Amino acid sequence: MRLRADLVPQDNLSYQDVVLVVDVIRATTTATAFLEAGAERLYLTASLESARAFRDADVVLAGEEGGLKPPGFDYGNSPREAKEAPVGGKVVVMSTTNGTRTAHLAARSAKHVLLASLYNAHAAARLAHQLATEEVAILCAGKEGRIGLDDVYTAGVLAEFLQIMGSYELEDGALTALTTRRTYPDPLEPLHLSAAAQALRQVGLEADVPFCAQIAVSPAVGVLEGRVGEALIFKRAQRPINGSQSQIPTI
Amino acid sequence: MRLRADLVPQDNLSYQDVVLVVDVIRATTTATAFLEAGAERLYLTASLESARAFRDADVVLAGEEGGLKPPGFDYGNSPREAKEAPVGGKVVVMSTTNGTRTAHLAARSAKHVLLASLYNAHAAARLAHQLATEEVAILCAGKEGRIGLDDVYTAGVLAEFLQIMGSYELEDGALTALTTRRTYPDPLEPLHLSAAAQALRQVGLEADVPFCAQIAVSPAVGVLEGRVGEALIFKRAQRPINGSQSQIPTI
Repeated sequence: MRLRADLVPQDNLSYQDVVLVVDVIRATTTATAFLEAGAERLYLTASLESARAFRDADVVLAGEEGGLKPPGFDYGNSPREAKEAPVGGKVVVMSTTNGTRTAHLAARSAKHVLLASLYNAHAAARLAHQLATEEVAILCAGKEGRIGLDDVYTAGVLAEFLQIMGSYELEDGALTALTTRRTYPDPLEPLHLSAAAQALRQVGLEADVPFCAQIAVSPAVGVLEGRVGEALIFKRAQRPINGSQSQIPTI
Repeated sequence: MRLRADLVPQDNLSYQDVVLVVDVIRATTTATAFLEAGAERLYLTASLESARAFRDADVVLAGEEGGLKPPGFDYGNSPREAKEAPVGGKVVVMSTTNGTRTAHLAARSAKHVLLASLYNAHAAARLAHQLATEEVAILCAGKEGRIGLDDVYTAGVLAEFLQIMGSYELEDGALTALTTRRTYPDPLEPLHLSAAAQALRQVGLEADVPFCAQIAVSPAVGVLEGRVGEALIFKRAQRPINGSQSQIPTI
């Protein structure tokens, strides 16, 4: 099985099999937190306008623009807020600058698209490992076209879990991500150093960083199940029927 | 001063100041070797066709397609061959799959474009440091749109030299490159692991890898001085007038 990490999204890349989309600060962490809070579905849109188009329906709008809650939205993009949000049984429509767009890029070609973060790293890696037949690709959202140290680090953590689960042939991106993971034993360090964390500090939301730095806490994994209009529909993956050898809870 | 590393070329990125173009296996190493061998100028073209357009003139054609010398070319893209080539006083026209195209991307916006490799890493870093007024950007060529571990490692070596020379504010790409450099004390390891080295093995040119892994051996640095037709003209940088504090020879 091949393990690939694309450390920045690129329009000309395509995916054949499983993609783990990573925007650890904060979109994929927040998406996982909404699923944990009981959201029935997540609709990920590539723009704020597409998200607003769902407003008439009985949905919750969440997302960010410049790191902050856009006008008319119910929630920003804070995982702390998402985890406590009363969204049980509801649809949450999310739009963010980097993460949701990257999910759309993956969805153009991949067979399976999963939302991965440090917070659900083990569950996401295991589901990817179960679904893959030829390749697991980790696609980092980065920040406005540039590489994000936070996402590269998360890719390294995912790669580490995947290597425990099976035999993978690593390409250059995955090797680079693994070296970053091994350089920083404490996830808070690379996350705090990242441009994404610096941007959060500028808008007073730095308390989201320690939340995003928690590793393998959540069993919830968003998995793409279809489309509605311009939105991608993600649903929480079901617990697999067959048991796992792992001591970490199954999804 | 800012230090930035873009680990894969992207059309939508632009550069304000100094760019170090890196394609360590093999274009920027080979370009440096041609300058060491006495080439008067290097013309870097973005395609084989553009290179062939210079054929009538009194020039030497060098480059690769699938790793091998293209039909009608005088040389391939081997730095071992380039260093021994009788190119004194001549123009060498080069075209390669990743490296020369990446130089063209940098040249669209940058003030200064330098050709950097492990082989000339110290000289290239010092020239970049001398020229920069706001930012040194390291632009890795990668391999067909994907990240190359060899180029990321080289970016880390360049970043390390730059940090010795002055105070730099590092962004996420430069931090990622530095962690890769620190993970592999021996440059042969990441170079051998890279997709670029694997491709060389498939065409029997793996002996180029140890050449490319030599660090800071050459004082020659190609610097962009203009254009002719569709080619970028690179010339060997002159020895600076003011002396250097460094014990490594000045360029």
